[in-house]
Amino acid sequence: MSEDLTRLARQIGFLVETDKAKSVFRQSYLADSSRKENDAEHMWHLALCVLVLGEYADPPVDLVRVLKMVLIHDIVEIDAGDTYIYDEVARATQAEREGRAADRLYGLLPPDQEAELREIWEEFEARVTAESRFAAAVDRLQPVLLNVAGEGRAWLEHAMSADRVRAVNSKVAEGAPVLWDYLSALLDEAVSRGWLSD
Amino acid sequence: MSEDLTRLARQIGFLVETDKAKSVFRQSYLADSSRKENDAEHMWHLALCVLVLGEYADPPVDLVRVLKMVLIHDIVEIDAGDTYIYDEVARATQAEREGRAADRLYGLLPPDQEAELREIWEEFEARVTAESRFAAAVDRLQPVLLNVAGEGRAWLEHAMSADRVRAVNSKVAEGAPVLWDYLSALLDEAVSRGWLSD
Repeated sequence: MSEDLTRLARQIGFLVETDKAKSVFRQSYLADSSRKENDAEHMWHLALCVLVLGEYADPPVDLVRVLKMVLIHDIVEIDAGDTYIYDEVARATQAEREGRAADRLYGLLPPDQEAELREIWEEFEARVTAESRFAAAVDRLQPVLLNVAGEGRAWLEHAMSADRVRAVNSKVAEGAPVLWDYLSALLDEAVSRGWLSD
Repeated sequence: MSEDLTRLARQIGFLVETDKAKSVFRQSYLADSSRKENDAEHMWHLALCVLVLGEYADPPVDLVRVLKMVLIHDIVEIDAGDTYIYDEVARATQAEREGRAADRLYGLLPPDQEAELREIWEEFEARVTAESRFAAAVDRLQPVLLNVAGEGRAWLEHAMSADRVRAVNSKVAEGAPVLWDYLSALLDEAVSRGWLSD
């Protein structure tokens, strides 16, 4: 490779660098509880959720934009690390850490693509548009599905209460009320099975 | 959950079942060589390749269709296992094994979505349309990028020759000639570094 970074070489450089998302581990376990999930797997699973559950977006959304959002939303964690949604200390510094990560990682791309993906990520983070609210809804739903499949292992390890999980996840209702009803019933079931404290 | 499978329950059932793609390991190592890549990570990485490299599709393609293709293309391996592209014995039974897998896995979905995703997967496999050729191009390019980043580890383990890798990967030219030129130069470099035999 020449030192002169062509457009394609920058794009390839970004794609190789983002391979590191496969080594950023989350708090959620896989459905079979065998190990924790990583960010690359999580982003893939969310994209599949968007393909399969898109009909529940309310208001209706541009699903292609949502797909792009979920496919890139956790790339910043390559530098910033995973911030557990129930960890309030880590969440205080999250925006600043992730902003720096976005500068470096999206900065690997040619400027037009840096601007495009950065804008999509910022839209996701701001959660103002219908697209970002639906993306946030599947981002909340998917870990609950894994937790329920795994008999609440991550919740039990963190001695999580149903109230706390409901408060964090009630944002699903903003993007997909039908999915919130479903998730809410799952949380009731998790309480009745002793995976979440009441 | 009631025994009566509603539409949403079937969709969720499919999404939880496809979590197993995270436990199907491929022959490629991650870019840092630390371990092999799994199918979920691979499908995510291809989707990112489509977002970033879509401009090189020639002829131009419907990138949303390509995105859907790459996001689902290896789901059948949950039942059928990964078939190494250089393993000719396994490749002889691949189509039959994967067809049965598609019946079971896509059959978990409501019928309209089963038909839609099955059709997209079959289009990918047939590699006749421009979309499927571009999807196949990134599916070939991405493991080469990982192999080069990892100093040829998977190639060295299989004592792979440059001719064989070129023959399998030359199909990249059908979907994206610019990417084939780039990949071809990478293979020359791999030979010069001793990662592929000449």
